[in-house]
Amino acid sequence: MRTIDWRDGRIVAIDQTRLPHHVEFLEIDTVEELIAAIRSLAIRGAPAIGVAGALGVALAARLHPDDPAALHAATDAIRAARPTAVNLAWGVDRVRARLDADGAEAALAEALTVLEEDARCCRELSERGARWLVETVGPKVAVQTHCNAGALATVEWGTALGVVRSLQQHGALGHVYASETRPLLQGARLTVWELAQIGAAHTLVVDSAAASVLAQGLVDAVVVGADRITANGDVINKVGTYPLALAAARAGVPMVVAAPESTVDLATPSGRDVTIEVRAAEEITALGAAALAPQGTETLNYAFDITPADLVTAIVTERRVILPGAGGRPDDPIDRS
Amino acid sequence: MRTIDWRDGRIVAIDQTRLPHHVEFLEIDTVEELIAAIRSLAIRGAPAIGVAGALGVALAARLHPDDPAALHAATDAIRAARPTAVNLAWGVDRVRARLDADGAEAALAEALTVLEEDARCCRELSERGARWLVETVGPKVAVQTHCNAGALATVEWGTALGVVRSLQQHGALGHVYASETRPLLQGARLTVWELAQIGAAHTLVVDSAAASVLAQGLVDAVVVGADRITANGDVINKVGTYPLALAAARAGVPMVVAAPESTVDLATPSGRDVTIEVRAAEEITALGAAALAPQGTETLNYAFDITPADLVTAIVTERRVILPGAGGRPDDPIDRS
Repeated sequence: MRTIDWRDGRIVAIDQTRLPHHVEFLEIDTVEELIAAIRSLAIRGAPAIGVAGALGVALAARLHPDDPAALHAATDAIRAARPTAVNLAWGVDRVRARLDADGAEAALAEALTVLEEDARCCRELSERGARWLVETVGPKVAVQTHCNAGALATVEWGTALGVVRSLQQHGALGHVYASETRPLLQGARLTVWELAQIGAAHTLVVDSAAASVLAQGLVDAVVVGADRITANGDVINKVGTYPLALAAARAGVPMVVAAPESTVDLATPSGRDVTIEVRAAEEITALGAAALAPQGTETLNYAFDITPADLVTAIVTERRVILPGAGGRPDDPIDRS
Repeated sequence: MRTIDWRDGRIVAIDQTRLPHHVEFLEIDTVEELIAAIRSLAIRGAPAIGVAGALGVALAARLHPDDPAALHAATDAIRAARPTAVNLAWGVDRVRARLDADGAEAALAEALTVLEEDARCCRELSERGARWLVETVGPKVAVQTHCNAGALATVEWGTALGVVRSLQQHGALGHVYASETRPLLQGARLTVWELAQIGAAHTLVVDSAAASVLAQGLVDAVVVGADRITANGDVINKVGTYPLALAAARAGVPMVVAAPESTVDLATPSGRDVTIEVRAAEEITALGAAALAPQGTETLNYAFDITPADLVTAIVTERRVILPGAGGRPDDPIDRS
């Protein structure tokens, strides 16, 4: 099962707003449907929305074969559906360049290449991350993670949870602690569901309790994904990652970020330069029909936060391990020795 | 309006599980009802449950005038209703000592003294805290708080929100950021309600976003209450206080704890020696009728966490300001000069 795929001329994606209680797939035939799915987080996770952007350009090229202006407006709209994850713009730009050069069929081929590359990159970075953890912390690794950087955030294997899967395959996985990830509970809904599917022993905690899990010595590493990694090694990820990194540093536990190279944004110098998406108040003040706060309460609903590079022990991609906490930078020349 | 009071031979307390949508009062005539109210957090907040413990002994003495064994068992049961806040045991012990020495009428008088003292102590420590903040950070103080340490957590004025009220009275209050406080949302439900009642400008954030509020420079101080303060200056408070203290330290913002002396527990050397209450999974996995996580998910639902003394800039009580971050300790001799 793939989280997102191309089938019979349309995009097919699992509807993540319905999990864990309902496993349903969206069949997306229009650009408007795709943008709505990305905005509502039916499709979410930086790598997955990168693939959605790539497939979206291919879809738009089919819908507007003879109208370059409409095609251009459609791909611009996809690119702007969410601001923070760099993968979305990256996926759109890559396929649009191919479209401009070689036409619609070539664009579809490129989008399918992006899809397959994501699947392969996740497996490679997960293997590298698992190996690094075993070498660094020992033969059995208990992990704290946040939000969902699993199969659901990618085409099929995951980044942070891909590392967890790889540890499990090697018999090196200890207990997994997942934080619920308010307001939309991607940890409680999605990560817990994935961990149950793969049979990994796991415990759910509120976001605030993750620091206590670290202080109590219950985990050997924090492993999370990323929505953007800037040239200096700052990590933009789901809100709650930064306090987790502070707690990991205090506990002397490595803070590991697992992400494909497509999440690394060398054009942006630091986290300060990234637009942090602020989402609607209703995500915090209500849950389904239940009001959680007095009506009309003002909120500041940051979707992401910025973890400064010095708090990031390791960034693991399909090509390398960067050590920002020890002075390493994503824009360092890659050592191919 | 008092959060908890003694009226017509019974304990009357606002039912905090029904706020903010319903303002209802419990009339408590039995020890069993009192214990259930404390356990369900209908009565909550360390100072308020201290008063509840004191009034509970007076109530038990009325109910068992001729049965010392039943009376002793009842007061023991009240004392053990929740384990972490020291105020509960303190309130029970203080009135029980008076009961043993002087009988039921004297015990009631003592319990009413505890009630009045809480009201007075909160106002005194709030004034001191507001003065300290204005002297330390400037004439207008924007505050981040967590959980509810307001009128609802005490008899009538509050500790952390008491400081906010006193700042407001002196025209020195900037914006207030309240974190929602999962799992039971005391911030979203209770603190936001109190702030609206007093007309203080406020914004609600998820717990994970408080670190970003600090990193963005939006507040001048963190002000929270406490459930227990140990002899070395460690602070036990609602889970989420510790990561907030880490973020405050990183941002160079003072971390201020406002609490009455009855919360200071000189008999306990450090936070390591305190029993941290672990509550039921259902608080995390469900909200009303809505399931938030797959059925049967294992949780670790810490109600409190431990903030090490070095992260606490100031502890303000009705008698003094202790500066643990600068080496001050609650068991230092009090300077009365």
